[in-house]
Amino acid sequence: MLPNDTIIALATPSGAGAIAVLRLSGKDAIRIADEKFRSVKGKKLSGQKSHTIHLGHITDGPKVLDEVLVSIFKGPHSYTGENVVEISCHGSPYIQREIIQLFLRNGCRMANAGEFTLRAFLNGKLDLSQAEAVADLIASDNEASHQVAIQQMRGGFSGEIEKLRQELLDFASLIELELDFAEEDVEFADRSRFEELLQRIELVLKRLIDSFAVGNVIKNGIPVAIVGAPNVGKSTLLNALLNEERAIVSDIAGTTRDTIEDEMVISGIGFRFIDTAGIRETEDVVESIGIKKTFEKITQAQVVIYLFDASHFAENSKTIIVEIEKIKNKFPQKPLLILANKIDLADADQIKNSLDYENLLLISARENTGIDSLKDKLLEFVNTGALRNNETIVTNSRHYDALLKALGDIQKVQHGLQSGLSGDLLAIDIREALYHFGEITGQVTNDELLGNIFANFCIGK
Amino acid sequence: MLPNDTIIALATPSGAGAIAVLRLSGKDAIRIADEKFRSVKGKKLSGQKSHTIHLGHITDGPKVLDEVLVSIFKGPHSYTGENVVEISCHGSPYIQREIIQLFLRNGCRMANAGEFTLRAFLNGKLDLSQAEAVADLIASDNEASHQVAIQQMRGGFSGEIEKLRQELLDFASLIELELDFAEEDVEFADRSRFEELLQRIELVLKRLIDSFAVGNVIKNGIPVAIVGAPNVGKSTLLNALLNEERAIVSDIAGTTRDTIEDEMVISGIGFRFIDTAGIRETEDVVESIGIKKTFEKITQAQVVIYLFDASHFAENSKTIIVEIEKIKNKFPQKPLLILANKIDLADADQIKNSLDYENLLLISARENTGIDSLKDKLLEFVNTGALRNNETIVTNSRHYDALLKALGDIQKVQHGLQSGLSGDLLAIDIREALYHFGEITGQVTNDELLGNIFANFCIGK
Repeated sequence: MLPNDTIIALATPSGAGAIAVLRLSGKDAIRIADEKFRSVKGKKLSGQKSHTIHLGHITDGPKVLDEVLVSIFKGPHSYTGENVVEISCHGSPYIQREIIQLFLRNGCRMANAGEFTLRAFLNGKLDLSQAEAVADLIASDNEASHQVAIQQMRGGFSGEIEKLRQELLDFASLIELELDFAEEDVEFADRSRFEELLQRIELVLKRLIDSFAVGNVIKNGIPVAIVGAPNVGKSTLLNALLNEERAIVSDIAGTTRDTIEDEMVISGIGFRFIDTAGIRETEDVVESIGIKKTFEKITQAQVVIYLFDASHFAENSKTIIVEIEKIKNKFPQKPLLILANKIDLADADQIKNSLDYENLLLISARENTGIDSLKDKLLEFVNTGALRNNETIVTNSRHYDALLKALGDIQKVQHGLQSGLSGDLLAIDIREALYHFGEITGQVTNDELLGNIFANFCIGK
Repeated sequence: MLPNDTIIALATPSGAGAIAVLRLSGKDAIRIADEKFRSVKGKKLSGQKSHTIHLGHITDGPKVLDEVLVSIFKGPHSYTGENVVEISCHGSPYIQREIIQLFLRNGCRMANAGEFTLRAFLNGKLDLSQAEAVADLIASDNEASHQVAIQQMRGGFSGEIEKLRQELLDFASLIELELDFAEEDVEFADRSRFEELLQRIELVLKRLIDSFAVGNVIKNGIPVAIVGAPNVGKSTLLNALLNEERAIVSDIAGTTRDTIEDEMVISGIGFRFIDTAGIRETEDVVESIGIKKTFEKITQAQVVIYLFDASHFAENSKTIIVEIEKIKNKFPQKPLLILANKIDLADADQIKNSLDYENLLLISARENTGIDSLKDKLLEFVNTGALRNNETIVTNSRHYDALLKALGDIQKVQHGLQSGLSGDLLAIDIREALYHFGEITGQVTNDELLGNIFANFCIGK
């Protein structure tokens, strides 16, 4: 059922700024706005064309609340598909509050989180995976996650799913048609073409499922474990990595971001640095718990950095080599980067001769030398091939689950087909697969599912 | 000189939200936006009408940065009077940053604080006092300061000044004309009408100057000194006042404001509560310093609240009466409110009989009784007559200074006229007065003055 009340919310971030935008949506949005808007030219909003902007005042009886610009979007040519009014007012929290309260008293209701986008979905302006991408887009804080979200929002992902779903649906209909003519033993659905389709679907599903590992990393940042004893220069290293990126950002006044410790973006890819203790040979129980935790953290990481103090290499070289070997033995598949820090105070040749490892880098976090090579190495280790090739990437665990289930169903259908299963039994498995396809794009929904998805949105979207 | 470059800034508050608005202004704004905007309908922005909105994508080469709505305003029909483009993008800080950087690389420059409004002033869209009201409007956090700012922004104040300035200017011209015909001893300027005008100007200036006391209070909040010993319930009282107002605010999710301790808005008027110690009779040097400080704070306040614990009235009644009398003697003109707190635990009749004061209120901050009467009393004490009558109120100390100087000049001219001063000497004082009028509305400016005024704006306005 489509809602027919009119909702309002602040669409811009809360706080003070030059302007703020309030958004109304619903079939009465233009009429309600008209009642409180006095155009400087004496125009009525209801008489105006869609996608036009009008200067005037929001008034509460004799009191002028603000001078505003009002934008009109007539349904279905709006974000939600309904009539939408956007009020661009002065950005004082007081004014925002007063205008919202005025409209709450005059026929509007406060929007729930994500309700504008929910209405866009219900009105067929977006499918469900596109709607979910809107939230991802707003949350994205680096180039990679942004590109994936925008691709999904523009329909790249669901377009592919929808096309396969349609083809599968056609076959399902033919097979079900056969059931009506069961007595006559006809085959409307060409079995070899059907098998070819199932193979194609299987391939696409597998590719999408595989992309989730990359997608997850892009969305949540690439976990990098740093193994290193205290005082080898861990925080200096993180600062050296961070400062440079910060310098780029702070060029633009008013757009600086908060920094979350040990999370940073390098060349558009998010990284999460996980601090661990060293891995010393020990008989001590407490120490051995430390080692266990270090190994656990390495297990979760996608890349391992082993950091040591090059200026004290001579006295520690044995321990360092033992620790490196331990990591290599325990995690033979995991990319390992060995960083000799404080190289400005050390004998570089001695270290290069003693440590014959492929991924050894000589750096000085304090002097900022070798940091660029480190970044290059980190990016090299990251499996972003799919990203570079602009392939579709799944980042949403709800989609991942549905794809896994759909794959299971498709494989059942393939088996059934090969073992000559009867049409009516085939049809059941096909319907199951179609159901899971529909869950992704939103042909199949229920209130609980929608509630869960849109509760994660911000209010005003 | 008018600027001819194109500026860009984030116009909405920084941070994440559903949408964010970026604003471009300058003669090339539409052309620059056109180069990076790909309309879904294949339209070019430069071919579109003013005050229209267009859906499309901001692109950086092959990369899509965001799906956006672009609003076009063609100069002079825009906020700045120049061509203006507003880009409404998804509210992720990442996207905001990327789009701003894209335009910085392609012909825009980052706007300075207040530069959009400065351009509006330079292009004659606003006079200077209206421009200043824009910043006040954004900073206003209660109804009173909001109403004053919006009245000033709509020109109420400068309209009055400008009209008088024009009349004075006409007389100045006539008197200066007389100087050209000095040999012939003619009087173009009717001296009695001139005197009448000067009286009118004097009255208006005095009224505006007087209004500054109210204006200042409205802008900065009304200072209320609370005199009371520890444990009489000061913070419970402040919470009782605050909580009720808070409840109103928190009705609207997403628009809650930060609370500054001991500052609050009651029925649209801001109050600042100043905590002071009690005023005990004492020989102790340290104690007497405390009394001195209390008196200093009362001097700064516009209203004094004397708060005592009614549940311990019997044993303290003498001290209480002595303290009240001290305040009344020292500050006979200052409104004094006497609050008997914890009245739910006390004998109300005894207190009423013992304390024969006009402004005695029996309250219980904990039980929330009497709080409404307290609010009414506070508002009654506040001189908001001018506000209620919708009179022009001066809140800006720069305007106040200029008005004081103009008044001095006008009084000099009046004197001169009465003592039969010659036209050329009169003209000098009239020009001085005109100069100070011009300072308010901005006919008289210099770069330093403009720099000072607009530096207080936020970026994007």
